[in-house]
Amino acid sequence: MNNDEESIEKLRKMVLEMYTALKMGEVPEISLPSRNKDNIVLDPKYSIWRYGENITTRSARSIDGAEYILKVLSVVEFIMEMIGENKSSTLREMYYISEGWGNGKFHTQDESNLLAEDLEIVSKLLREDFHLRPEENGASIIGNITVEEKSRKGDFKTINCKDDVGDGGYPIPYNVEKEKLRLKSADADFILAIETGGMFDRLVENGFDERMRSVLVHLKGQPARSTRRILKRMNEELGLPVYVFTDGDPWSFRIFGSIAYGAIKTAHISHHLAVPTAGFIGVTASDILNYDLPTDKLTDKDVDALKAELNDPRFNSETWKEEIETMLQINKKAEQQALAKYGLNYVTDTYLPEKLSEGGAI
Amino acid sequence: MNNDEESIEKLRKMVLEMYTALKMGEVPEISLPSRNKDNIVLDPKYSIWRYGENITTRSARSIDGAEYILKVLSVVEFIMEMIGENKSSTLREMYYISEGWGNGKFHTQDESNLLAEDLEIVSKLLREDFHLRPEENGASIIGNITVEEKSRKGDFKTINCKDDVGDGGYPIPYNVEKEKLRLKSADADFILAIETGGMFDRLVENGFDERMRSVLVHLKGQPARSTRRILKRMNEELGLPVYVFTDGDPWSFRIFGSIAYGAIKTAHISHHLAVPTAGFIGVTASDILNYDLPTDKLTDKDVDALKAELNDPRFNSETWKEEIETMLQINKKAEQQALAKYGLNYVTDTYLPEKLSEGGAI
Repeated sequence: MNNDEESIEKLRKMVLEMYTALKMGEVPEISLPSRNKDNIVLDPKYSIWRYGENITTRSARSIDGAEYILKVLSVVEFIMEMIGENKSSTLREMYYISEGWGNGKFHTQDESNLLAEDLEIVSKLLREDFHLRPEENGASIIGNITVEEKSRKGDFKTINCKDDVGDGGYPIPYNVEKEKLRLKSADADFILAIETGGMFDRLVENGFDERMRSVLVHLKGQPARSTRRILKRMNEELGLPVYVFTDGDPWSFRIFGSIAYGAIKTAHISHHLAVPTAGFIGVTASDILNYDLPTDKLTDKDVDALKAELNDPRFNSETWKEEIETMLQINKKAEQQALAKYGLNYVTDTYLPEKLSEGGAI
Repeated sequence: MNNDEESIEKLRKMVLEMYTALKMGEVPEISLPSRNKDNIVLDPKYSIWRYGENITTRSARSIDGAEYILKVLSVVEFIMEMIGENKSSTLREMYYISEGWGNGKFHTQDESNLLAEDLEIVSKLLREDFHLRPEENGASIIGNITVEEKSRKGDFKTINCKDDVGDGGYPIPYNVEKEKLRLKSADADFILAIETGGMFDRLVENGFDERMRSVLVHLKGQPARSTRRILKRMNEELGLPVYVFTDGDPWSFRIFGSIAYGAIKTAHISHHLAVPTAGFIGVTASDILNYDLPTDKLTDKDVDALKAELNDPRFNSETWKEEIETMLQINKKAEQQALAKYGLNYVTDTYLPEKLSEGGAI
């Protein structure tokens, strides 16, 4: 049974259960873990975020609940059609397509996006299995790793992310699951995941991937699911450790948190996305002091975010607490490109070798 | 003389003039066309935007002017160094590097970005000649066109943008000038430039590039210089007409305007970037009515932008005036993905064939 057939089977079973309930005179309902901040726990065994014990139940007894279930069923029907025709759609397209679903029509795209995630939890499938994708990604990879990507026509193209691409690198497709993308081999010692395009391009120009035998991954800010998933797969299947290099501010710390431990919205698939062994290279508050970097003052929002991180289980370690408190104390943040203060080679000749050797990478 | 040597020569000449002026006891100054909205004219001959007759002069007689000239010279020195070492830098890196330039230090990145553009005007060179690049691009191409991209190591890689890439396409590099990127051949009838990633992916999935013999270019919102430049080059060198497909709102009309006629900030290089023969496919206000699309209400900002476009020489045609007035009257805008209301194939099976045939493309 291939992946699509399995998805159809699981969805059909889910719908059948509801149909049977109705036939037996029962009111259909859907139960899900509460998907808010209060119901997130750090899984002690795997060191990733997952949902806690709180459950929300939507029952067709209320009009809201009945509409919710109608929407779920409309989405399931749409997904089964797409799988049948071998099509996919963006979340935005699904929102517009729901125009024709009567009372099952979505009122905002947030609503349809959330429902797609709910459906992942209920069906134990992935958004990729649903043939649903986000707007765009734009993240890319450069390094000596060879992949096979399934083309629109169904054949696999072999692409080496160093030799077969231009300076823009290999763009990460929206679906990086095995049926779409195979990781064949890598000749590298570690992965460096980089927040900004400017810094990614700097490391590419300076040949950091070749000199330091690394695979460079551009995160493009808060990384998309596909980017986190491919990091996870490269880590597990190719045995490459992951290091994260971001700006030095609370939002970048969260980028690291989501890569290493997972994010609230996707806590049901943290085991699928998170790389708990990922290391944070910087920019840290200590780096701002030690490397005397150009800085900006923290905004009120920055301060609030840092304070929230002090209570975030993902940052519940001595090192993180010290770094966050230092940042609050000096009241400063810095961008990764601020290292250019010392010239264009400083980051690859001095900063990264120092930080990676501290982190045990080299 | 290669491109870099020419750039060095031109910059050296510029500096020499200032040096000579100083030696002769004259106060050095820099004169530029005023770079604001009031000094933009539509060139009657080429139908592109250019700067008018108003000139601003910065003289070292004032402290502001002297600091400006110091900054220009510091940037020139930095550029010459980069060319000598075959390096490039992002505009953001240059801003940080200026930390070491004393009174020549930039206070904001806007300041350094503007100065880089000023320097293009004064030197008659391009930002690409300066080895300066923007943060990131992320726009991409899919279609039967073959390019040769110069790698970091100086050799040229041949890439067919249909056969040699994954579904993410060929990412447009920041420098698409001839010394970096050669356009070898294309087997296609026209170029379709698409605003959003969701719609680009839709056309790719539906095989629109093959069925309609077209090259698909993802604009990624307001297109970067490199995207506009590669459209221009494909249009001129490969003889492919350009059609633009965007959302239906005033900001998307501006995207079309900048592709066809140029933009205020880059009016000094409109002849280098603009494709005055580009056609606008939609989404138009008439489309909203004719295709009965899902819409949103115009915001106050949308209304202001539409009114400004009524006085914009780039939209000074009967058709545009009618479309803009219709949009104001119905008080509605629509996204290109709203066509999904009629299913995932509607845009490629019905809408685009109808609109392209109206536009004379097919």
